[in-house]
Amino acid sequence: LDYQHVQVPFEITLWIMLASLAKIGFHLYNKLPSVVPESCLLIFVGLIMGGIIYGLNDRSPPVMDSDIFFLYLLPPIVLDAGYFMPSRPFFENIGTILLYAVVGTIWNVFGIGFSLYGICQVKAFHLQDVSLLHNLLFGSLIAAVDPVAVLAVFEEIHVNEKLHILVFGESLLNDAVTVVLYKLFRSFCEMPAVKSVDVFAGVGKFFVVGLGGVLVGLTFGMTAAFTTRFTKDIRVIEPLFVFLYSYLSYLTAEMFHLSGIVAIIACAMGMKRYVEANISLKSHTTVKYFMKMWSSVSDTLIFIFLGVSTIGENHEWNWPYICFTVIFCLIWRALGVLVLTFFVNRFHVNTITSKDQFIIAYGGLRGAICFSLVFLLPDFHRKKLFIAATTVVILFTVFIQGMTIRPLVDLLAVKRKRESAPTVGEQIHIRFLDHLLAGIEDISGHWGQYYWKDKLEYFNSKYLQKILLREYDQPKSSIVLLYEKLERKHAIELAEAGQLGHAPSHPSLLCSGFLCSNSDRSVITDKKLEDTLNPDVLENIQEILARNLYRIRRTGPAYNRHTLPGETEPTEHAKEILILRHKSL
Amino acid sequence: LDYQHVQVPFEITLWIMLASLAKIGFHLYNKLPSVVPESCLLIFVGLIMGGIIYGLNDRSPPVMDSDIFFLYLLPPIVLDAGYFMPSRPFFENIGTILLYAVVGTIWNVFGIGFSLYGICQVKAFHLQDVSLLHNLLFGSLIAAVDPVAVLAVFEEIHVNEKLHILVFGESLLNDAVTVVLYKLFRSFCEMPAVKSVDVFAGVGKFFVVGLGGVLVGLTFGMTAAFTTRFTKDIRVIEPLFVFLYSYLSYLTAEMFHLSGIVAIIACAMGMKRYVEANISLKSHTTVKYFMKMWSSVSDTLIFIFLGVSTIGENHEWNWPYICFTVIFCLIWRALGVLVLTFFVNRFHVNTITSKDQFIIAYGGLRGAICFSLVFLLPDFHRKKLFIAATTVVILFTVFIQGMTIRPLVDLLAVKRKRESAPTVGEQIHIRFLDHLLAGIEDISGHWGQYYWKDKLEYFNSKYLQKILLREYDQPKSSIVLLYEKLERKHAIELAEAGQLGHAPSHPSLLCSGFLCSNSDRSVITDKKLEDTLNPDVLENIQEILARNLYRIRRTGPAYNRHTLPGETEPTEHAKEILILRHKSL
Repeated sequence: LDYQHVQVPFEITLWIMLASLAKIGFHLYNKLPSVVPESCLLIFVGLIMGGIIYGLNDRSPPVMDSDIFFLYLLPPIVLDAGYFMPSRPFFENIGTILLYAVVGTIWNVFGIGFSLYGICQVKAFHLQDVSLLHNLLFGSLIAAVDPVAVLAVFEEIHVNEKLHILVFGESLLNDAVTVVLYKLFRSFCEMPAVKSVDVFAGVGKFFVVGLGGVLVGLTFGMTAAFTTRFTKDIRVIEPLFVFLYSYLSYLTAEMFHLSGIVAIIACAMGMKRYVEANISLKSHTTVKYFMKMWSSVSDTLIFIFLGVSTIGENHEWNWPYICFTVIFCLIWRALGVLVLTFFVNRFHVNTITSKDQFIIAYGGLRGAICFSLVFLLPDFHRKKLFIAATTVVILFTVFIQGMTIRPLVDLLAVKRKRESAPTVGEQIHIRFLDHLLAGIEDISGHWGQYYWKDKLEYFNSKYLQKILLREYDQPKSSIVLLYEKLERKHAIELAEAGQLGHAPSHPSLLCSGFLCSNSDRSVITDKKLEDTLNPDVLENIQEILARNLYRIRRTGPAYNRHTLPGETEPTEHAKEILILRHKSL
Repeated sequence: LDYQHVQVPFEITLWIMLASLAKIGFHLYNKLPSVVPESCLLIFVGLIMGGIIYGLNDRSPPVMDSDIFFLYLLPPIVLDAGYFMPSRPFFENIGTILLYAVVGTIWNVFGIGFSLYGICQVKAFHLQDVSLLHNLLFGSLIAAVDPVAVLAVFEEIHVNEKLHILVFGESLLNDAVTVVLYKLFRSFCEMPAVKSVDVFAGVGKFFVVGLGGVLVGLTFGMTAAFTTRFTKDIRVIEPLFVFLYSYLSYLTAEMFHLSGIVAIIACAMGMKRYVEANISLKSHTTVKYFMKMWSSVSDTLIFIFLGVSTIGENHEWNWPYICFTVIFCLIWRALGVLVLTFFVNRFHVNTITSKDQFIIAYGGLRGAICFSLVFLLPDFHRKKLFIAATTVVILFTVFIQGMTIRPLVDLLAVKRKRESAPTVGEQIHIRFLDHLLAGIEDISGHWGQYYWKDKLEYFNSKYLQKILLREYDQPKSSIVLLYEKLERKHAIELAEAGQLGHAPSHPSLLCSGFLCSNSDRSVITDKKLEDTLNPDVLENIQEILARNLYRIRRTGPAYNRHTLPGETEPTEHAKEILILRHKSL
């Protein structure tokens, strides 16, 4: 037996296996995951594991290594989050998200730090030796909402898109603030005296850390898109580049003390559009599924390790400090959300309701990032107290808040996510409004979001696409793409029902309503359209679409302010129409 | 700048990136990969990299770590090889493959070892201090054909299936022999005297190492299949189990000094069938593509590292020894193939032609396994000579043989792989013959391969499938599966051509030949059938298939010796026919 030789990979594989099997175990009983969030169950498994290790060895089980967490476990989750970020709601609410992430987090850090310093002055608690700077340092690590914990809980409760993106976006973007404040207070703690110039340098660092992260991320993202231009002959390694470049962006940002989370999100969001167009469909499936798989495993491991690390003798149980930490975390977050939302609502028509505010405040879960940061603290005599307080806050937020948020959402009747995808009609409407608003903003000289979006789109189609896309083509309108997708889906369904060989597909597609009433109804995906329109009208639309699709494909995306209708080679256009007419005659 | 912190993952990522970019680079010029095998180009890149590192640092570049090779780089390649192994030709030729792998490798080891010992007796070469045992040890590591090198070259030259599986199967299964002989001679070298009992123990070890590997692999494979029964609710981590269990089988085998390669191949081949049935289609795509991607990256890294490790001062250039090593490797392999094939051909009707024999002998490429084994040798004063000889043999086989094998295959007009998939007619024929031969063998009391195959199939459908498959169903006949697949493919093609909406699909499917002569011909995949049959007959067949598919699906797989035709609930059967008749009337 030669265990030494294979120990490292063997133990890593076994941990991953344990995590995956635990996940399967929960889902064997369907009722369990619908009541208790998976994150709680995993922490619970971790606690049991930790207890067993503690009992057998009679010493504290190993603590999750901060390096392993930040270098290997966190990046897959953030990459997954960035790659599948719904970009429209994100950019529509970017102002609010940034306000919560930057101002909100600073508010929380100082609020929690100063109030805990106040508690330390009470003689009965025996905490006089904890200085203000140490309290602020603790505040900086405990204040930030954790993306892993938020994702784990919010993915299960299906609140509406805006609410979800507000909490989740905040939890991602506050990383820049956390990094700056944590490092600032840590260096202040080690300095003999803090000068005012250092404080100003700290404020300047915000912008460097945040914007630097975005810059690093976008650079790697664009390089990734450019690289996938040349992978046509070796499809097999295409998915690799998505992972390699995003990971490099994270590592590079960390290397320069920038925000790695911000970098990897910028990288993923920047590259997605171009990479998707360049790589093959199967490569894209691989990227998507592997990303989901990987982030799911990381997530599972993190919660199990959290549980394991909780057991042991790393804690100093000064209950007043710990209880007040929990209370202040709740109070300052609630206050922050109230005040900030008041300002946000003054500038927006689509306001954040008080129910939404409550969920935003209540959804401020803490997780593994705080935990890793507290272990990274330099050794000082009260470190164990901070570890204990952090552990309790995490367990409180994940267990109590995480388990009660779903009933609360039900009770308050918070607006849920809509189940169905937007219909063709809605898509046309949204697109039409975008162009209309961009035009209005342009004419009135107001540089609003639609104006900038339109400019960016113009820059994208004029320069970026030509450099980054392999086959630079007139981009297909999203409606045409949707139509093609529906057709393909319908074809597969027909083939699987065994109807392709003997029944012509056209009637079966349009037999909804009065022609026939069997199970064929299900093949028509666009139910809304079907409900509102007369079947005859529907047939007409289908025929018009099918006949004119060739022309739509060739004449660019709907209306574009930067191209005149006549620009697209009128002679060829005319020839096409001629050929089509010939055929129909 | 904090490079130390991210060094390990950063450098790994950069190496993988370099490897992938090099691969893209080769494919930018289409002519290069068609002349020079990719493995040669990669070694060449490695040589340049090594030269640069050597030039800049003025010391030998780092050598590929044997642990990294055996624990991290080799498993993905072997897993890929095992998972995509064509099982029919493999099991049909298992006897020949084992003969080549076991007897052939032993023949080569002793042949090369003894002849090199002879060379060492020549005084002019100054090699008298190399003992017989050391020569045999060197023979044991240099004799084995390398699966990575063979795969890299043979994937590009497309020889016929039998020839490919003979060389490739040998290169995989000889691992058991190599492991035993290498460890045996290594321990003999360190012993003061070798007793005859040790030699007998060595012979016994063959079976333990080989069969133990198979047993470990099958155990993990079956566990993997069983686990995927329960992943219905968490599709996202399904692909993980394929990787985890195979890797565990490899590590476990290595831990017990069994053959890891044999274990992982047994695991992959054992689980494939059940896992494929249990996991979702998208998970399966992810598994397949990720496996291909991973093995491709490993493969690339191995060849680049081979090149880098070649540069430096690890070598002792005793040219007589090195040249004779190359010559003996060629001669003994050629002799071995000739003698073994002579015996094989006496027992088979479908003989191995002399052209095939030449390619088998010539395709005996050496690669990274030899290289890692030679670095794992205990330190002794002639280790650098062995390293030099191994390096030269690898470079000679990969460059000279690898680059000339394609022109030779062309020149000799070796039978190539058929391009098209087997037609429905052929599949029916093969299946019919299988059953016929199984019946003949059963009646005549001859326990041949068909008898065992049938027994295994019976055991599988009676016990294994019930335990390992989630939805245990009457297995669909492969013909029905093929028909469904063709239908689905055809449906997608129609949808993509935009014909589904307005043209009924039935005529377009059958319009080949005389009804119409446009591009629709391409949708009929079964070209052979189409060429030989009258279109009217074809239409008839299609109609019969389409009408009777329901009945085929219900009545189990064609003919089975273990079920009587009447067994499958005759009343229900009759009812079905009745309903079908009703409909057709």
